[in-house]
Amino acid sequence: MIVGLGPGPAEWTTPEASAAIDAASDVVGYGPYVERLALRTDQRVHASDNRVEMDRARLALKLAAEGREVAVVSGGDPGVFAMAAAVFEAVEDNPQWLKLDIAVAPGVTAMQAAAARLGAPLGHDFCAMSLSDNLKPWAIVERRLRAACDGDFVIALYNPASKARPTRITQAFDLLRAVKAPATPVAFARAVGRADETLTLTTLGEADTSFADMATLVIIGSSETRFISRDDERPWMLTPRAYGARR
Amino acid sequence: MIVGLGPGPAEWTTPEASAAIDAASDVVGYGPYVERLALRTDQRVHASDNRVEMDRARLALKLAAEGREVAVVSGGDPGVFAMAAAVFEAVEDNPQWLKLDIAVAPGVTAMQAAAARLGAPLGHDFCAMSLSDNLKPWAIVERRLRAACDGDFVIALYNPASKARPTRITQAFDLLRAVKAPATPVAFARAVGRADETLTLTTLGEADTSFADMATLVIIGSSETRFISRDDERPWMLTPRAYGARR
Repeated sequence: MIVGLGPGPAEWTTPEASAAIDAASDVVGYGPYVERLALRTDQRVHASDNRVEMDRARLALKLAAEGREVAVVSGGDPGVFAMAAAVFEAVEDNPQWLKLDIAVAPGVTAMQAAAARLGAPLGHDFCAMSLSDNLKPWAIVERRLRAACDGDFVIALYNPASKARPTRITQAFDLLRAVKAPATPVAFARAVGRADETLTLTTLGEADTSFADMATLVIIGSSETRFISRDDERPWMLTPRAYGARR
Repeated sequence: MIVGLGPGPAEWTTPEASAAIDAASDVVGYGPYVERLALRTDQRVHASDNRVEMDRARLALKLAAEGREVAVVSGGDPGVFAMAAAVFEAVEDNPQWLKLDIAVAPGVTAMQAAAARLGAPLGHDFCAMSLSDNLKPWAIVERRLRAACDGDFVIALYNPASKARPTRITQAFDLLRAVKAPATPVAFARAVGRADETLTLTTLGEADTSFADMATLVIIGSSETRFISRDDERPWMLTPRAYGARR
């Protein structure tokens, strides 16, 4: 089973995910995710580095083919920029693996946790994309950002920046600024649900992209998204359900 | 608190959501969602029809302003085409309401439950849009479908059809068929997690849109999405993490 742990806290881990971890003989995953779990001494742990998703997927399939009860753990939702795609990419490597009983336990993904803290920025049509160009050409990232503007979608950006590609977020914002209004609401939601959670509200014109790192989820509004001001409190971020109602 | 119950089964309801229901003095929501809950006799229930989201939002805010502990329940994730946007749209109606302590409990949304059953169709960049034109002009739906094709996003369609607008899904597919390859994988995922769950895999060229109703989530692949065949089993649906790797 490919298991989504949610963004961090146990209160966001589904009962299905918890039961799958409990039932597993072997837990396979990126080190920090595995470390979150309270495992028993009879459970085998196969922790690995973040960069080796395909190795991890193949190890999980090999163990499952040996008859082990394997839980592959992902933060967030394994189906959204996470381990489910890696496992299904690997499944054709061995005809035996295609016979395995593979299931996915969905989870709350970073975009949803961020949205919950911010108000309702994803209350209308939106798109989700990864800004990493490790696995796709930068040209397709640019094409998608342009299309997201053409469609006036709210945009949720995963993996906005890393040490290996610190300028990608700046390039993305340059592209967005050439098309969208400077007043467009923007949120940087970092480590939501964890002790170092940080929410930064700004606008497309004023955004300081150096806020973004690999633990940050960026939400860029549509033409309808707005902030709702409150006394002495962070504004709410809202994309209304109706489109064009203010015009 | 605006609470996401997930797509149906208790195993997909987060501990946070369950605790919020338990702590509520008043539960406000669409009848079928409220009926799912095992409430105590001391909890007040305010069930209503599906069409009156704004009335429900205002009632919840009014009760909260009176000092009640209110849980507004939504299926799926309240932040995704659900009650969170309605509550924040209503919050400015009364200056007192802006002082309320409003929180959102995120949940697994229909698109994630469908993806989990299908394999990993949302493993790469995707967009989510509602096909309902109750609250937006059909022209913006068409504009977004075109933009989603231009960006080669995987497309998740919520509310694909209803009795009031049975032809919208046909019009949407006509538009998509004019642009995307007939072999593009398509899935109709109906009532995922419930007793009458039905998964239909097809292609854009062959899809029979009469499968779609209000309980259906439709996923249309990108140019990279493919089916993985299995003996005697439903194929897996995969959008690989890498873009253009097969070319």
